[in-house]
Amino acid sequence: MQRDIYQEPLVSRYTSKEMQNLFSEKTKFTTWRRCWVALAEAQHELGLTDIVTAEMLDEMRANVENIDYDIAAQKEKEIRHDVMAHVYEYGLKCPKAAGIIHLGATSQFVVCNTDLVVQKKAMLLIRNGLLQAIKNLSEFSRKTKDIATLGFTHYQPAQPTTVGKRNTLYLQDMVMDLAYIDNYLDQVKARGAKGTVGTQATFLELFKGDHEKVRKLDLLVAEKLGFSESFAVTGQTYTRKMDMKLGETLAGIGATAHKFAVDLRLLSNLKVQEEPFEKKQTGSSAMAYKRNPMRSERLTGLARKLMNLPQNFAGTYANQWFERTLDDSAIRRMDIPQCFLLTDAILKLFVNITSDMVVFPAQIKKYLLAELPFMATEKILMKAVEKGESRQEMHEVVKEHSLAAGKEVKENAKENDLLKRLAEDGRIPFSLEELNEMVSDYSAFTGRAEKQTEEFLDEVISPLLLANRNEMAEIDSSLSV
Amino acid sequence: MQRDIYQEPLVSRYTSKEMQNLFSEKTKFTTWRRCWVALAEAQHELGLTDIVTAEMLDEMRANVENIDYDIAAQKEKEIRHDVMAHVYEYGLKCPKAAGIIHLGATSQFVVCNTDLVVQKKAMLLIRNGLLQAIKNLSEFSRKTKDIATLGFTHYQPAQPTTVGKRNTLYLQDMVMDLAYIDNYLDQVKARGAKGTVGTQATFLELFKGDHEKVRKLDLLVAEKLGFSESFAVTGQTYTRKMDMKLGETLAGIGATAHKFAVDLRLLSNLKVQEEPFEKKQTGSSAMAYKRNPMRSERLTGLARKLMNLPQNFAGTYANQWFERTLDDSAIRRMDIPQCFLLTDAILKLFVNITSDMVVFPAQIKKYLLAELPFMATEKILMKAVEKGESRQEMHEVVKEHSLAAGKEVKENAKENDLLKRLAEDGRIPFSLEELNEMVSDYSAFTGRAEKQTEEFLDEVISPLLLANRNEMAEIDSSLSV
Amino acid sequence: MQRDIYQEPLVSRYTSKEMQNLFSEKTKFTTWRRCWVALAEAQHELGLTDIVTAEMLDEMRANVENIDYDIAAQKEKEIRHDVMAHVYEYGLKCPKAAGIIHLGATSQFVVCNTDLVVQKKAMLLIRNGLLQAIKNLSEFSRKTKDIATLGFTHYQPAQPTTVGKRNTLYLQDMVMDLAYIDNYLDQVKARGAKGTVGTQATFLELFKGDHEKVRKLDLLVAEKLGFSESFAVTGQTYTRKMDMKLGETLAGIGATAHKFAVDLRLLSNLKVQEEPFEKKQTGSSAMAYKRNPMRSERLTGLARKLMNLPQNFAGTYANQWFERTLDDSAIRRMDIPQCFLLTDAILKLFVNITSDMVVFPAQIKKYLLAELPFMATEKILMKAVEKGESRQEMHEVVKEHSLAAGKEVKENAKENDLLKRLAEDGRIPFSLEELNEMVSDYSAFTGRAEKQTEEFLDEVISPLLLANRNEMAEIDSSLSV
Amino acid sequence: MQRDIYQEPLVSRYTSKEMQNLFSEKTKFTTWRRCWVALAEAQHELGLTDIVTAEMLDEMRANVENIDYDIAAQKEKEIRHDVMAHVYEYGLKCPKAAGIIHLGATSQFVVCNTDLVVQKKAMLLIRNGLLQAIKNLSEFSRKTKDIATLGFTHYQPAQPTTVGKRNTLYLQDMVMDLAYIDNYLDQVKARGAKGTVGTQATFLELFKGDHEKVRKLDLLVAEKLGFSESFAVTGQTYTRKMDMKLGETLAGIGATAHKFAVDLRLLSNLKVQEEPFEKKQTGSSAMAYKRNPMRSERLTGLARKLMNLPQNFAGTYANQWFERTLDDSAIRRMDIPQCFLLTDAILKLFVNITSDMVVFPAQIKKYLLAELPFMATEKILMKAVEKGESRQEMHEVVKEHSLAAGKEVKENAKENDLLKRLAEDGRIPFSLEELNEMVSDYSAFTGRAEKQTEEFLDEVISPLLLANRNEMAEIDSSLSV
Repeated sequence: MQRDIYQEPLVSRYTSKEMQNLFSEKTKFTTWRRCWVALAEAQHELGLTDIVTAEMLDEMRANVENIDYDIAAQKEKEIRHDVMAHVYEYGLKCPKAAGIIHLGATSQFVVCNTDLVVQKKAMLLIRNGLLQAIKNLSEFSRKTKDIATLGFTHYQPAQPTTVGKRNTLYLQDMVMDLAYIDNYLDQVKARGAKGTVGTQATFLELFKGDHEKVRKLDLLVAEKLGFSESFAVTGQTYTRKMDMKLGETLAGIGATAHKFAVDLRLLSNLKVQEEPFEKKQTGSSAMAYKRNPMRSERLTGLARKLMNLPQNFAGTYANQWFERTLDDSAIRRMDIPQCFLLTDAILKLFVNITSDMVVFPAQIKKYLLAELPFMATEKILMKAVEKGESRQEMHEVVKEHSLAAGKEVKENAKENDLLKRLAEDGRIPFSLEELNEMVSDYSAFTGRAEKQTEEFLDEVISPLLLANRNEMAEIDSSLSV
Repeated sequence: MQRDIYQEPLVSRYTSKEMQNLFSEKTKFTTWRRCWVALAEAQHELGLTDIVTAEMLDEMRANVENIDYDIAAQKEKEIRHDVMAHVYEYGLKCPKAAGIIHLGATSQFVVCNTDLVVQKKAMLLIRNGLLQAIKNLSEFSRKTKDIATLGFTHYQPAQPTTVGKRNTLYLQDMVMDLAYIDNYLDQVKARGAKGTVGTQATFLELFKGDHEKVRKLDLLVAEKLGFSESFAVTGQTYTRKMDMKLGETLAGIGATAHKFAVDLRLLSNLKVQEEPFEKKQTGSSAMAYKRNPMRSERLTGLARKLMNLPQNFAGTYANQWFERTLDDSAIRRMDIPQCFLLTDAILKLFVNITSDMVVFPAQIKKYLLAELPFMATEKILMKAVEKGESRQEMHEVVKEHSLAAGKEVKENAKENDLLKRLAEDGRIPFSLEELNEMVSDYSAFTGRAEKQTEEFLDEVISPLLLANRNEMAEIDSSLSV
Repeated sequence: MQRDIYQEPLVSRYTSKEMQNLFSEKTKFTTWRRCWVALAEAQHELGLTDIVTAEMLDEMRANVENIDYDIAAQKEKEIRHDVMAHVYEYGLKCPKAAGIIHLGATSQFVVCNTDLVVQKKAMLLIRNGLLQAIKNLSEFSRKTKDIATLGFTHYQPAQPTTVGKRNTLYLQDMVMDLAYIDNYLDQVKARGAKGTVGTQATFLELFKGDHEKVRKLDLLVAEKLGFSESFAVTGQTYTRKMDMKLGETLAGIGATAHKFAVDLRLLSNLKVQEEPFEKKQTGSSAMAYKRNPMRSERLTGLARKLMNLPQNFAGTYANQWFERTLDDSAIRRMDIPQCFLLTDAILKLFVNITSDMVVFPAQIKKYLLAELPFMATEKILMKAVEKGESRQEMHEVVKEHSLAAGKEVKENAKENDLLKRLAEDGRIPFSLEELNEMVSDYSAFTGRAEKQTEEFLDEVISPLLLANRNEMAEIDSSLSV
Repeated sequence: MQRDIYQEPLVSRYTSKEMQNLFSEKTKFTTWRRCWVALAEAQHELGLTDIVTAEMLDEMRANVENIDYDIAAQKEKEIRHDVMAHVYEYGLKCPKAAGIIHLGATSQFVVCNTDLVVQKKAMLLIRNGLLQAIKNLSEFSRKTKDIATLGFTHYQPAQPTTVGKRNTLYLQDMVMDLAYIDNYLDQVKARGAKGTVGTQATFLELFKGDHEKVRKLDLLVAEKLGFSESFAVTGQTYTRKMDMKLGETLAGIGATAHKFAVDLRLLSNLKVQEEPFEKKQTGSSAMAYKRNPMRSERLTGLARKLMNLPQNFAGTYANQWFERTLDDSAIRRMDIPQCFLLTDAILKLFVNITSDMVVFPAQIKKYLLAELPFMATEKILMKAVEKGESRQEMHEVVKEHSLAAGKEVKENAKENDLLKRLAEDGRIPFSLEELNEMVSDYSAFTGRAEKQTEEFLDEVISPLLLANRNEMAEIDSSLSV
């Protein structure tokens, strides 16, 4: 590590080795070679066997990973052209093929196709991380499906729900994120073999005007690079709209994780739910006892940055002039890795946090009991109406006492005595005993929350995880906190 | 029009009546009533026939549009609750049903479901506008498929392409926008009947604990409102992630239109292509002759605003606490209409511009001829290599003369004499005659551009338009310029 | 109110009449006339007395507010040029001056100068609102300067501070916002009289090549419009960088208010501090007792939108080509009013909320007492070190018991028994009595918080309010909640 | 360079060593030590001479740069606390002072103060770069003050201006950027010595309740760190509003540079102005002759990213809860360096480009002559009105012929024959000779452009550069293109 220049914290602190590798020089330059191999193979298969011989192909395939970076770097310094420098270095390793490497292609042939190959791989990595988080959270949700807890609107106590039910809300959003990943994967294609401004002019010349062969070349290259199609048309590059969709897809994951993390930070203040806490973890120097929700906080900040990146891609796409302008280069070079690395870091945290969250039912119950009389007011209203009282009038009476009881809690830090107040009010047709009875089974206030949780997990999540079981790999969610 | 207070320009200047109506009070309040009708019908159908009678349903259905807004407004002022005020006013019109309107529901039952109904309708309106623009542009593209023109990279002349081919690039992006609209329409569902914090507690009570009936109620309401499903789970509102996806879907259209419009503004400077110009349209007071690309400029500005709105939805979604916080209210009230109105205005312009664009082939040809010698350098290189020359060496020679010829053009505003220079250089194995021959058929430099255009229009666009032919309605793209 | 088309909610719901008026057609068109009067007067004063006569000036001055909007609108429809239409209508009212209205000017003379006049006035309105909020909050801060309360880091209890001290943090940020307003007001200038592309060519001709007179004309016009200077140079319009600075200045206020509002929403959950609550205000239909922090939530949402607008201005400025492109028009037409109206709405809420906030000291104390043993750990550590114990060792012991006590609170919802645990541990050199003594005066834990508050209010805020006392006008902060 | 993990391109490609160093670990950790020295010195000076001895101070000062990073890193790994790890390592080097390093402070004492010290230094570096760009551009502007050129509105030819005058527009914006830098430097202060949540509790204890000494400590520390003040009040950290202002200040520079660069890219297409081009620079592999405006394009992309960063700071600031939440940490760790590095890269490019821009007067003249007849229409109108013709009628006639002449140019790629057309129209009271005469001196059409340029350079720029002459240092603007 160099201590006298800036180090990118995404790499030094937050992300997985897999993702860092995907955006490394090594991945880039070896993928360039795979593109050249794909092109040469396709040319050979389509009949250019005397120009591109089987021997050359063998040589090229054998040297995909055999790169002398220093030679390439020196050549680049000299001719100021990275692609040509690597054509040169590859040529040194493949003396027979040297003349046909990159035949008919321009720089963007390797640059765009490599970008797309790497992005697709990175998206699959993200997809896996998201599935892991879904799995963890669904297990948590099932485990807590029947724990009644305060539901909040305006961050004020509303009607009760269950812990598990609340977590299905995040899960449903994650499923939508997954749908958008899959939609993105449907849209992304290879750039194929398109030529300088996308007209395939050099390839048409190479194939002596045979349009069908050039179309096949385009498709063959795509297939060899792992795509079922190439973009039907391109300018010099693949459409930068694809990048915008990429950014939005990832930002969606960031937004879901952000909502989850903020809720957890609030729950942590309430002391009812916590992120996992490692034994050796220290709070601040002065406050030994604190269990700061640092992972959720970190996640929040990373997601804030991620959610703001699609804007850049939109700006770049919308301001590309004609077949291509180079104002896309520096910004994509930073933002495409950044948005994947941020998502990677976020999912690492998300998987880590959801792997072992702690719930404190006693605290939950304490809060619930303190608010239950307020929450029962709707039930009391309904029962009173059943008894023939006017809903409007009852509403007024209940409101009056609610506010008074609430005032007492706030102004004198007393316990909530709403039921007592109601029982003592002649207009209310219930005794304190009857009122206490009404609130005794507080899980009854949670309506279908538990059932909804079961249904959602059984009908949506389980089939999803089952369908993806072969594609899910454990990820390393250990953190340096 | 009130002249002493601010008027929203989106309404007064840029948008269609249809879209303005969709976000009006009238649409909102009548849709609320449709939600109440749907709920009552579903309750009736599921067996609550003695509480919700057929007679009540008739009454409710008959009064959906019969709203006395002043009474509702006055009631709202009094009780400070818009939904209850309209329950009251609806009750005045439906004396028999008065007691069962909104039965078991909370405000968000009408608010969320109405939002979703309106958004879906608005999205279909947008979808139609986009199809119109696709249709116009595909016709333009076909008409100009074989007009050779300068391709630009770095906004510097690169290899030639065709006008039609360039326009397939926009078309391909528009098809992707359409795919994202369709994906959004797949994701959007009704909120259904979910209750205060989404637990359906009041409905479960109403149906005496019969979970299946409550699930059916939820689905029935959704179907009656035009959806095939409702969200499996909700908090107090439907997930605000849906709004984020809404914003992104529309921003995608804005971005495509922006790229198109900027290109057209540049073409307009080159005097090779123009937006339609109305006879009576005046330039500025002092510059009578100017044909300013005002529609494209307006489109650019509107799209810039649109592309920035998804950020707001992301922020709102990611910062919703638990079952719902009200920081979503004011911002959604502005931004959801704004993003639809902006897209509506953009598509109106896009359809208008693409309906009658003018191309000036003589100008195009002039530019092409001035650059063709430069553009032919690749061809000359290839031919020289075929003759046994070293590509690297030829590259250097050609580069040297290219720069010199370019210098002459720039520094002395002379014609391009590159071919003459090359012919006179002994290292180049071609005569001036041969070189002139090489550039004579300039459409040959466009490679597969024409063919690609045909293929794309035949294989992608035509089937798309055919499949949607019944859903496309002419839109009014007249403008107040 | 039209019920069948969209109504801008900023106008119909949230903002002051003053701000709505500033962005009305009436203000725009009468200010145009003031610009024409200023120009004519300056031309007259600089010697063009036979072209621009005193009589004409009288006529023009007399008809500034005398506008027949229908005639102007009809003319605009005909000639499609709003400025010329108003020149025409003004001419109808001023038959003598008709020929010299707008003499030597182009449209942007009235458009830009009017924009700047209106923006400056609007900024002064905002400045006043901000001062009102500062005044309210400083009074609250002084009143609560000595109320000890939990300080939070990570939204976990940290060391105590005071309520007043916490509020000085918002105040300090508001003072910075004010400094940026004043900086903006220093930077904003008139556009003056600059001509089509800013070269003053027509004016130079008018003054027969007299450069000095043209410079004076420019300055005179600026002064007559209330500025001490005009921009030294312009293209067709004043620099759009100014709009970017405008947006940032206002967004700063939004951000400060947002932070304040979010804190208040959290305090409201804790039941320790609340926004004012009107007697008649109703919670939701089902939850009568709730005191939802609706104003703070509304403020949060409005601020979120405001904070995102500078981006638009930056994009417009950075993409203006040469002397001006029209992609600024539609977006500025929306965004400049929007950012002022949003800030106006935010300040109305901010002033309203801070005018009568409620604090519940009993609740505050309850929280404090529950956490104080934890908070005293630093003090206990220091005292133990004074007694010769190793800080590192004590830290470990205290940490162990802190975590255990915290666990008891969370897992069993018990009271905090940390001090008892410490007293019983032989390694800690203090009795329970001594430990209780250490936490007895909890205001001692607040350090200089009270003093800092006094100093800040006395040394920063009071002088500021004093210096601005003549410029502050009461604003109407009543809301429609 | 590690080839198997992602490398931040800002560092590896675009920025200055100075800026990279400022955000390095070395700068951070040595500045932490400077903070500790400042604190100890101040404590000593304020009377704690027996706790903090002169000998300790010597020891501490001697070891500021003497850091064993590996020991610190290992300790951090063990105790998971970076500040405490460095206190430990510093203590190893300073055995006498070991017990008083960091006395009474919390982590944010070193973290915040170091952040502010580094940011201030970085801002001064940026200020210098901006001044260099101003200097370069003002020289270019003076050199080209009288070169008449097409002014553009809507990117359509408008009235002529001069090259120099156009460049004063960028200069004026840069001067505004400088004013905002200076305003930022006025606002930024030290965090001083504030304690855990900003109450200075530990310091008050240390000084036995002496408030004045604690205030002095705060100020002394600030002064020793190079600030004239510390923030009057803080929470756990300095206000994150400061970061928002930081981001806006830098984004302003990005926006100015972006506008400049886009204009230059357009001029480059017109072949009238170019960025410097190095001899060895190659275009793309296939297009040897191209002089792509790659620096301006790169600048455009970098600026797009920079302009989007203030949003992040606004979001972080506005969502900080109470005295501090940690969601600021990861995002600031990335975005503060990023925004400085981006600005650094942009200014490097800006200085490089403006150091040696090329203008092609012959091309400029060609364009001007082609448009001049159109441009002269205003003059012709005025002359005709002087001769007694109706302006409205003449306007119509001129417009008619302008459009026809323009049509001829576009449709048949012919020369502009407007004057001939006018001369032949009996309604126009001028002969062709007279009309030619009117356009002969085309510099006459530039109004005060040259004069304005002189005035602006003499009255605004020269004094500014003079006032800053001692603070300007040459910067290395060499690029790796």
